[in-house]
Amino acid sequence: MDEGLVLALDLGASRLRAALVGPGGTVLARSEAPSATERGAAAVLDAAEDLLRSVRDPGGRGSEREGDDDARRAAGFPRRSPLAIGISAIGPLDPIAGVIIDPPNAHPSFRDVPIAAELSRRLGLPAFLDRDTNVALLGEHAFGAARDVQDVVYLTVSTGIGGAILVGGQLLHGPDGTAGELGHLLVDLDGPPCGCGARGHLEGIASGSGIVRAAGEAVRAGTGGLLRAAADREGIDRLSAVDVAAAEDAGDAGAAAIMERARAAFAAAMVTIVDVFNPTLVVVGGSLARGQGDRLLGPARDAVCSAAFRTPGRRVRIVPAALGDDVALIGCLPLVGMRLPDMTGNAAASGA
Amino acid sequence: MDEGLVLALDLGASRLRAALVGPGGTVLARSEAPSATERGAAAVLDAAEDLLRSVRDPGGRGSEREGDDDARRAAGFPRRSPLAIGISAIGPLDPIAGVIIDPPNAHPSFRDVPIAAELSRRLGLPAFLDRDTNVALLGEHAFGAARDVQDVVYLTVSTGIGGAILVGGQLLHGPDGTAGELGHLLVDLDGPPCGCGARGHLEGIASGSGIVRAAGEAVRAGTGGLLRAAADREGIDRLSAVDVAAAEDAGDAGAAAIMERARAAFAAAMVTIVDVFNPTLVVVGGSLARGQGDRLLGPARDAVCSAAFRTPGRRVRIVPAALGDDVALIGCLPLVGMRLPDMTGNAAASGA
Repeated sequence: MDEGLVLALDLGASRLRAALVGPGGTVLARSEAPSATERGAAAVLDAAEDLLRSVRDPGGRGSEREGDDDARRAAGFPRRSPLAIGISAIGPLDPIAGVIIDPPNAHPSFRDVPIAAELSRRLGLPAFLDRDTNVALLGEHAFGAARDVQDVVYLTVSTGIGGAILVGGQLLHGPDGTAGELGHLLVDLDGPPCGCGARGHLEGIASGSGIVRAAGEAVRAGTGGLLRAAADREGIDRLSAVDVAAAEDAGDAGAAAIMERARAAFAAAMVTIVDVFNPTLVVVGGSLARGQGDRLLGPARDAVCSAAFRTPGRRVRIVPAALGDDVALIGCLPLVGMRLPDMTGNAAASGA
Repeated sequence: MDEGLVLALDLGASRLRAALVGPGGTVLARSEAPSATERGAAAVLDAAEDLLRSVRDPGGRGSEREGDDDARRAAGFPRRSPLAIGISAIGPLDPIAGVIIDPPNAHPSFRDVPIAAELSRRLGLPAFLDRDTNVALLGEHAFGAARDVQDVVYLTVSTGIGGAILVGGQLLHGPDGTAGELGHLLVDLDGPPCGCGARGHLEGIASGSGIVRAAGEAVRAGTGGLLRAAADREGIDRLSAVDVAAAEDAGDAGAAAIMERARAAFAAAMVTIVDVFNPTLVVVGGSLARGQGDRLLGPARDAVCSAAFRTPGRRVRIVPAALGDDVALIGCLPLVGMRLPDMTGNAAASGA
């Protein structure tokens, strides 16, 4: 698998990114555009095609291609042609059919978009789709924090909370490929509404959007202090989780209560994760987790020590993600490797 | 697999049961004794050995064995000798090593008991151990409500709440074999204590023990009505979930609030189960679930329809268990079939 190159596409809520990914998860070329799911399916597919072409042929149609190819050959990547396209996208989606179902806040035309088949046709390569968190877990498993570990739970904590689960080295997909939505672990039956329509899910409390919602409610309910000051300065609808975390750091009691509630929810959910999945490793990524660091992971580790079942509690390690922002691009390499039956054989056949 | 006979042992909190299980999950002989884990490991192993011998040799050491063997042969079970022992036991346990770790409320000697190796030695047969809920799921999968379904979540709701998970036809065990503890799904971060030491788990709210705890608290807090009357009649420490359910049926508002909370917790947890596992089927067993029937499953189905992700929510069916009290005995047949490499081949070799 490590012999080939893949084209990687990362369709996120705000950005559309493409890369050419080579052996070891090395990003050899990259390009990016606004995601524009609100502009509709046709616009996104056109933009994706353009980005993928630009990273496949970095020098354009002219003479620079040869020079670029020489550079790759010198770097030890003899084959110019990618084997396949890996696509990481926000859910919900059907990874087997390669169809994005209905991403939140997207244009009405962005329903049941057969993105894998369409990009495959346009680029002339096989294409494989999976949810961003699944692709990220594959990336961490191949090249990051979960190397050589077969039973892994992945969580990403940023604006939302996503999850993915590796059982015996295989993604837990379920028959529709929708399994692993750990942001929708229940935390508080009577808790605040979640974006999914239920109440009290982890995402509704411990994500960036959950923290911002709680801060907005606190300000509307008349809280003073730094949260009020930030709301007056930026507008109550423009508060961010970073503002709330900064207010906590500056000693604001209201902000601290919100952040502590988020961390407590995360820690209690981690106990359930350990009891239910018995993972060897939990990898936590996402911008909010990166910002909080051990302030988030420490209480989760403590809760697992004190309240999870003894045997799985002793086994599990809870660690930060290793791959950073490129994880969903890098993960397209093992995604393709998993789905394209004999990638190395095909690599030889498709070599320039 | 269906060709063989197995000896089945079901080590529960209150009962120790043994059976001879034949093709199709038919119980050909059975025997039972009090569980006596509070009397220590040696007593339980002796009792288990006696029960297993009694079902293996139903006529004792004398002449009836031949007659019994004739009857089995007439019924289409030509081989007298069981192939192996299947053991279903309360957790926590190590299914691979065949060791019961430390069951709750057991005698101090009941720690790290190598029950599979010990019974294997005493009976002269290979022996395989798994948690009662895993064995029950294997039974429902082979012969009950989950036949021909490969992605199944099993819940048992009685004094406690247990779980088991089948992914692509394989038990989700985890590296220690402890995965699947769905009674410890978080429901209410600020909720009542669970037996495991954490707060607000499903088992602490929706199980029989959770319902009894809530009823006891209500009576101690001065509630009147039928709960108080039941407590006065039976003693506050002898209230059962059946008492609380009966009080609800008779129109008692306090009892209804407790039962409704239990059902709401169960329903909200079901949404998480569907979002996280994307199962084709959820099978719900246990005495409390049996007693409540659609009163428990109906709100869970409604919650999934309204709040789970659309694709997995449309797929899943939530149904009662089919096999009743014998499920953990019957499940020992597929347990052995799964663990004994070539059971049919060995069957021929070990035939009388």
